[in-house]
Amino acid sequence: MKNIWETPNRKTGHRRTSLPSKEYFYIYPNTGWYPDPVSRSGHRGVPMSRIAVLMTDMFQEVEYEKPADAFSGAGHELTQVGLKAGVPVRGEHGMTVRIERAIHDVHVSDFDALFIPGGYSPDKLRVDEDAVRFAKEFVESGKPVFGICHAAQLLITAKVLKGRRVTGWKSIIQDIRNAGAEYVDAEVVVDGNLVTSRKPEDIPAFSKAALEMLKGRK
Amino acid sequence: MKNIWETPNRKTGHRRTSLPSKEYFYIYPNTGWYPDPVSRSGHRGVPMSRIAVLMTDMFQEVEYEKPADAFSGAGHELTQVGLKAGVPVRGEHGMTVRIERAIHDVHVSDFDALFIPGGYSPDKLRVDEDAVRFAKEFVESGKPVFGICHAAQLLITAKVLKGRRVTGWKSIIQDIRNAGAEYVDAEVVVDGNLVTSRKPEDIPAFSKAALEMLKGRK
Repeated sequence: MKNIWETPNRKTGHRRTSLPSKEYFYIYPNTGWYPDPVSRSGHRGVPMSRIAVLMTDMFQEVEYEKPADAFSGAGHELTQVGLKAGVPVRGEHGMTVRIERAIHDVHVSDFDALFIPGGYSPDKLRVDEDAVRFAKEFVESGKPVFGICHAAQLLITAKVLKGRRVTGWKSIIQDIRNAGAEYVDAEVVVDGNLVTSRKPEDIPAFSKAALEMLKGRK
Repeated sequence: MKNIWETPNRKTGHRRTSLPSKEYFYIYPNTGWYPDPVSRSGHRGVPMSRIAVLMTDMFQEVEYEKPADAFSGAGHELTQVGLKAGVPVRGEHGMTVRIERAIHDVHVSDFDALFIPGGYSPDKLRVDEDAVRFAKEFVESGKPVFGICHAAQLLITAKVLKGRRVTGWKSIIQDIRNAGAEYVDAEVVVDGNLVTSRKPEDIPAFSKAALEMLKGRK
């Protein structure tokens, strides 16, 4: 049963993960699906998922933006989670994104899925104990985890890749194998709750597989 | 016995690794040491080493420049080796360095030591087969290899860290361990022909240990 006491952020179009003040409450019939007051299209039959986007400076713009757009467009709620709340982070090519919640302040139970964009952001996240713990708990929870490009670096530090089938940017192939995982050279690899891709060209397949997984979520 | 038919590059102050044209020949007495016509101080008793600096875009400026200055200042010859010769590479903070030789065009026998600066340059180098092969052959040759920060990433892909004691930037600790090496949290770790350090603050200890190793070279 979804918490229906939620409303989208009016600026970003993303839903909040904390309770908004009362005047913004929307109340929807408890039909088991969650309508989307942003696109107003509704997404009957597909439950809305709260997706944490774990990112910091040097994220790869396209690998963040395109999947994020696909997820939002399908009616899911995105929350940018980073090392510090309320500050912008800067991508490899200068794009800035405001971080909504700090990693030390979030819990796996706040979200239904985790999305880790690529670039050098995962390298910076994996030195933060809370980010590593969050990623570890997420993978172990069985909830969907989507990672592209260098995202697997964070999962390596979280020690959750042993025996898993994953892919990632070619620079980290040996790291993935050394972590006990099977590296698969494919545009998207789905293994249990993990969806991974290699590079920007893989994004359409990545987003599609991720959305499929969210559809199947109970 | 050093090859004395060498002369420094007049622009960079670095010695050439290929034979210069005849009019620039310097002839020094065959005393077993190599005087330094750049600083004119000479370095009696210490043989000059030809050091390959393996680097590309996103190198960490300080981690390149400070050890390079220390090596040059001690009379050693540096050659910037990258993915393409004759072009500049750009550091994390915008500093540009001209690449003198392309990685596909160099051999371990051209050099006496290898220096791998940090930053995200090693991540970019480790997707290049020639760079990986060069690093691998260098480590296996027994010649000194100096690496700081993310440098160990290249050595992981080269599969030469098994059983070695090394250090590196904290983001790659798990990668180093998964590669079969012992990660040591120290400002500089010397193990056989490997000298590794973690971060910019370690540079004085790094340069000192590297220079000591070059002194001991036969």
